[in-house]
Amino acid sequence: MVKAGIIGSTGYAGQELVRLLLQHKEAEIIWYGSKSYVDQTFSSVFGNMFHIVEDVCRGDDLHALCREADVIFTATPQGYLASVLDEEILDACKVIDLSADFRIKDVDVYEAWYGIPHASRQFIPEAVYGLCERNREEIRGARLVANPGCYPTCSVLSIYPMVKNKYIDLKTLVIDAKSGTSGAGRGAKVPNLYCEVNENIKAYSVASHRHTPEIEEQLSYAAGEPVTLNFTPHLVPMNRGILITAYANLKPGVTKEMVRDAYIQAYKDEYFVRVLDEGTCPETRWVEGSNFVDVCPNVDERTGRVIMMGAMDNITKGAAGQAVQNMNLMFGLEETEGLRLVPVFP
Amino acid sequence: MVKAGIIGSTGYAGQELVRLLLQHKEAEIIWYGSKSYVDQTFSSVFGNMFHIVEDVCRGDDLHALCREADVIFTATPQGYLASVLDEEILDACKVIDLSADFRIKDVDVYEAWYGIPHASRQFIPEAVYGLCERNREEIRGARLVANPGCYPTCSVLSIYPMVKNKYIDLKTLVIDAKSGTSGAGRGAKVPNLYCEVNENIKAYSVASHRHTPEIEEQLSYAAGEPVTLNFTPHLVPMNRGILITAYANLKPGVTKEMVRDAYIQAYKDEYFVRVLDEGTCPETRWVEGSNFVDVCPNVDERTGRVIMMGAMDNITKGAAGQAVQNMNLMFGLEETEGLRLVPVFP
Amino acid sequence: MVKAGIIGSTGYAGQELVRLLLQHKEAEIIWYGSKSYVDQTFSSVFGNMFHIVEDVCRGDDLHALCREADVIFTATPQGYLASVLDEEILDACKVIDLSADFRIKDVDVYEAWYGIPHASRQFIPEAVYGLCERNREEIRGARLVANPGCYPTCSVLSIYPMVKNKYIDLKTLVIDAKSGTSGAGRGAKVPNLYCEVNENIKAYSVASHRHTPEIEEQLSYAAGEPVTLNFTPHLVPMNRGILITAYANLKPGVTKEMVRDAYIQAYKDEYFVRVLDEGTCPETRWVEGSNFVDVCPNVDERTGRVIMMGAMDNITKGAAGQAVQNMNLMFGLEETEGLRLVPVFP
Amino acid sequence: MVKAGIIGSTGYAGQELVRLLLQHKEAEIIWYGSKSYVDQTFSSVFGNMFHIVEDVCRGDDLHALCREADVIFTATPQGYLASVLDEEILDACKVIDLSADFRIKDVDVYEAWYGIPHASRQFIPEAVYGLCERNREEIRGARLVANPGCYPTCSVLSIYPMVKNKYIDLKTLVIDAKSGTSGAGRGAKVPNLYCEVNENIKAYSVASHRHTPEIEEQLSYAAGEPVTLNFTPHLVPMNRGILITAYANLKPGVTKEMVRDAYIQAYKDEYFVRVLDEGTCPETRWVEGSNFVDVCPNVDERTGRVIMMGAMDNITKGAAGQAVQNMNLMFGLEETEGLRLVPVFP
Repeated sequence: MVKAGIIGSTGYAGQELVRLLLQHKEAEIIWYGSKSYVDQTFSSVFGNMFHIVEDVCRGDDLHALCREADVIFTATPQGYLASVLDEEILDACKVIDLSADFRIKDVDVYEAWYGIPHASRQFIPEAVYGLCERNREEIRGARLVANPGCYPTCSVLSIYPMVKNKYIDLKTLVIDAKSGTSGAGRGAKVPNLYCEVNENIKAYSVASHRHTPEIEEQLSYAAGEPVTLNFTPHLVPMNRGILITAYANLKPGVTKEMVRDAYIQAYKDEYFVRVLDEGTCPETRWVEGSNFVDVCPNVDERTGRVIMMGAMDNITKGAAGQAVQNMNLMFGLEETEGLRLVPVFP
Repeated sequence: MVKAGIIGSTGYAGQELVRLLLQHKEAEIIWYGSKSYVDQTFSSVFGNMFHIVEDVCRGDDLHALCREADVIFTATPQGYLASVLDEEILDACKVIDLSADFRIKDVDVYEAWYGIPHASRQFIPEAVYGLCERNREEIRGARLVANPGCYPTCSVLSIYPMVKNKYIDLKTLVIDAKSGTSGAGRGAKVPNLYCEVNENIKAYSVASHRHTPEIEEQLSYAAGEPVTLNFTPHLVPMNRGILITAYANLKPGVTKEMVRDAYIQAYKDEYFVRVLDEGTCPETRWVEGSNFVDVCPNVDERTGRVIMMGAMDNITKGAAGQAVQNMNLMFGLEETEGLRLVPVFP
Repeated sequence: MVKAGIIGSTGYAGQELVRLLLQHKEAEIIWYGSKSYVDQTFSSVFGNMFHIVEDVCRGDDLHALCREADVIFTATPQGYLASVLDEEILDACKVIDLSADFRIKDVDVYEAWYGIPHASRQFIPEAVYGLCERNREEIRGARLVANPGCYPTCSVLSIYPMVKNKYIDLKTLVIDAKSGTSGAGRGAKVPNLYCEVNENIKAYSVASHRHTPEIEEQLSYAAGEPVTLNFTPHLVPMNRGILITAYANLKPGVTKEMVRDAYIQAYKDEYFVRVLDEGTCPETRWVEGSNFVDVCPNVDERTGRVIMMGAMDNITKGAAGQAVQNMNLMFGLEETEGLRLVPVFP
Repeated sequence: MVKAGIIGSTGYAGQELVRLLLQHKEAEIIWYGSKSYVDQTFSSVFGNMFHIVEDVCRGDDLHALCREADVIFTATPQGYLASVLDEEILDACKVIDLSADFRIKDVDVYEAWYGIPHASRQFIPEAVYGLCERNREEIRGARLVANPGCYPTCSVLSIYPMVKNKYIDLKTLVIDAKSGTSGAGRGAKVPNLYCEVNENIKAYSVASHRHTPEIEEQLSYAAGEPVTLNFTPHLVPMNRGILITAYANLKPGVTKEMVRDAYIQAYKDEYFVRVLDEGTCPETRWVEGSNFVDVCPNVDERTGRVIMMGAMDNITKGAAGQAVQNMNLMFGLEETEGLRLVPVFP
């Protein structure tokens, strides 16, 4: 039984981790960490957990926690883990970080986009980027896993086969992303109020969203050369879900069949990545509450472009689900344990 | 392994049955029946099932199905099961009917409220009303279970302890109910279009909703006398969930403490009924995707009334979840098997 | 041209006042008061006003404002107006208060339900309750109008004909109300976040909502005797709209025809109250963005009850629209000026 | 007083036309045409019109109507107007067609994308494309105006200044569009049911949407050369609104300032096109219920691209509002008459 502690359990990603770990056969939660709700019962914060979780929220003392836990999940603000992480913690247990602190290898890029100094850059080299479908083997042996961002997970998985096969002109790559509102977190801010989000769609952080360099870095590895692209997120009036619509010019000679085959080959052994039937558009409703990513390319022969689409639940595969998938790999468990949830519709 | 066939698997309740049975350890689905989608893959109708269900939809031949199945779920329009049910089917397998055909014992009442003649009234006496928390023992031995309506399930469980203990003046009982839109079914009708339901709330079927006599009958059993009440459903712009707000005058001498104690005693051994902490209002979001019913009474000493509230997922405990709970009882399985799902939030 | 100042113009009701007054032929806004956005342009707070309103938000100095304005609207928190109102202000201009400070005549009741002392009780007697359909004449001559609460407006108009005609047993009166989320205001609070409100319905402030005594007082005037009732509000995932579903026992001998006739007589000269065709249920979508209240009674002969239903836009007729209607009366303008807006659908 | 007839008044665009014309000082509606609701009162179809419109729906006899009307609006399915239009009608009155029948000058392109033969191609040359901001003068003299599609209106206005000034590489132009669900019409279809649209986002008609050639044609006029582009619409769970996010590479030497200036110059005299402050992202909520289009370019110097954004109400400026704007021009009225509606928020 893997003993898991969650720092930041009272945010949306933290709560989803609780939901998933409660239904996991080989893990148990021993610490419900919170900043705002210490000493309150977890179920008073999330009424769905009434009669299911009896625990009271505790603080965020990683050093105390690491002596009790086999794994710590940190669903915390940027900079927090970097500010407290040390060898003692990493010696004592494994850490899966849902923040961005250890996702980007080039610390200057991190500091430029996040606008804060990195307080423990010595751990950046060993941190493994926890996109399971790409880095499965490294994750198995890692002490510290940087759980990918929601947009990068869906973007990279939706685009990867085209980049890896060098089928697209990388200079033409544009990613238009749409996310449900849980991605904005549970902080009390006017722009996230019901009446502000409902009956509205908008782009935000245009040309400046922090997930941009993370996506670029991961696609660069696949390309074997630097990738620079536009990434534009939009806020959609729904709770869960991310949809990626990416555009690029196909290189001469690349056909519809080659494109489709690239996706099928890339994901034929992946349980969580579903390559939809030709001509199908991914929809967020079909993955809700699950760890699936649905992808499907669409070749427009008229314009010579490929439209790469992907849909995912932003707090499952985009956060908590992938974190559990990483935990399963790190502890030698079945990779899909606790994650074979059938998407909930409607 | 219980072999289950579903007639009407391509409606919302039918699809939820599929979701639940796929995650049930001791059941397998052998027949995906449909009227509109015969010969199409089930996953082409419900994209969430892609790569999970490979089956093709079949028709609604109950006589063929009963030779293969241990249990048949009928999630069909009113009158359908009554028109085809016979001894051959009931000899061959168990039937759990999600329609209203066998819920009401007085066939005249059925015919008056539903406006259709009952085509197999000979089976009404043996049909067991499948409200597990009330009729557990009878369900275990039944061949034919009438799965309760969504509104009646939530209404009866929310009100029952007050009626059973004779704490309220039955003549003053009023039920104001609110439901998500999945309760309206998947038929293509203008009033159920997105733009018609969104940003709106309305009452409907005022003083004439067909679930009224079902609620009255069940509460009459608890009261030991006939109950006549008002039941007013409302359509809420959300997918899932039912909320009941019921009002009645307390009888003289009934205190807050007595009321609370009645709920706790009634449900102390029930896994799926959660009596919330005093002063808490049930919310549909806390039960979404689960088989829980959250109930909580609120005594208004100023007016001498009790406000009885309950929240439930209309297609889980209100339809498919309760059907699986009935199946578990009928086959001697653990009652909660396949149903210990943590509610999904947000 | 009536010069109007708005204190609290950056809340939802305040912004709606701006929308309505901008489309009013005989009024102009001279002061956009705000607590949180002083010195910011109004259109930076509400992007719909871009290129329409060039003004910068000012503070809440009522004494400065009263020297420039003919009328002041206060869309402010409870207790604010009572804490600053004096003869100087009321001598200089008229005041329409959208808060609850002057709605309730019995100051003890006010203080008990609102939990704050009333700081200027000397003005309570002269304040006129601004429910135009009831107090039209008094409003015309008033210096200080207490604009009714949203729930009381819809409740009283939906129920009034039954009370006035003594057709119902007042002891059996129960009001079940449902409101869109704009009624919760624009404050940054976790319970009002999109993901907390969306896909949910709940009751709140059960047996304790502050609009209860206001409704009781107004119905008492109509009844000629004290009225005590239950009022239960619910939060609905939509922006605008209030729906009232009220229940009461009909007195012996009161028929369907008498009930219907009472509504028609009560409202035959009222532009803003529409008595719907028999059997029709009011829906909030049909009044959105307008000053209409749609009402319709439904008699259940089986139970002897009348179900009184009403739908209204909570921030138009329930706040800003009624405030403008009051202004029109107070300044001798056409009562419907600026308010003949066709409801926006979908 | 302009006498207007509406064919297709019981769809969403038709109903919006009614709303706008009722609030127009110099027009009156003399014919509420409908296919599905003939002989029913218009207000029984749209409850918002209760007590406002007393008329009964009539059929679609254009020849009868043209003898009574000064202008006919056709909000009808593709092919309908082309199948009935003749000289008699155009001699008798003006026609504003909200369908696509006369938008595209190359009839082969029309027939290829719409999949139907064009039944009255003789009128294509004289039809004026009713994008008022571009073709104001031609519209004034037209007998037949082809009211632009919703996506083309928002796309062309959002992109036009960049194309006209030759600031972008046309080969790199990609348009990612998002629309509320009213754009899908009021037909009873399963994919448009509340539970299918709610909590979901998806792309549709990828590389095949019929508005593509319309956008290409209009931008070609501005460019002076053929334009081929990708256009991808998405369905958003909201009633109203279209958001355009378009991407293109800037030509060498084009600066942020030049881009911004191009928009300001293009729209400085346009009441309905608002160029937002630099760095602001258009949001559909800020234009809801109004005829405004909010546009704002964002230059990403890092990638050398411009992101062109625009927001609009799809059934106002995207359909009925623009139709009224066209009517105003055709009849020599003030262009903004009946259209100076303040957007409704929230």
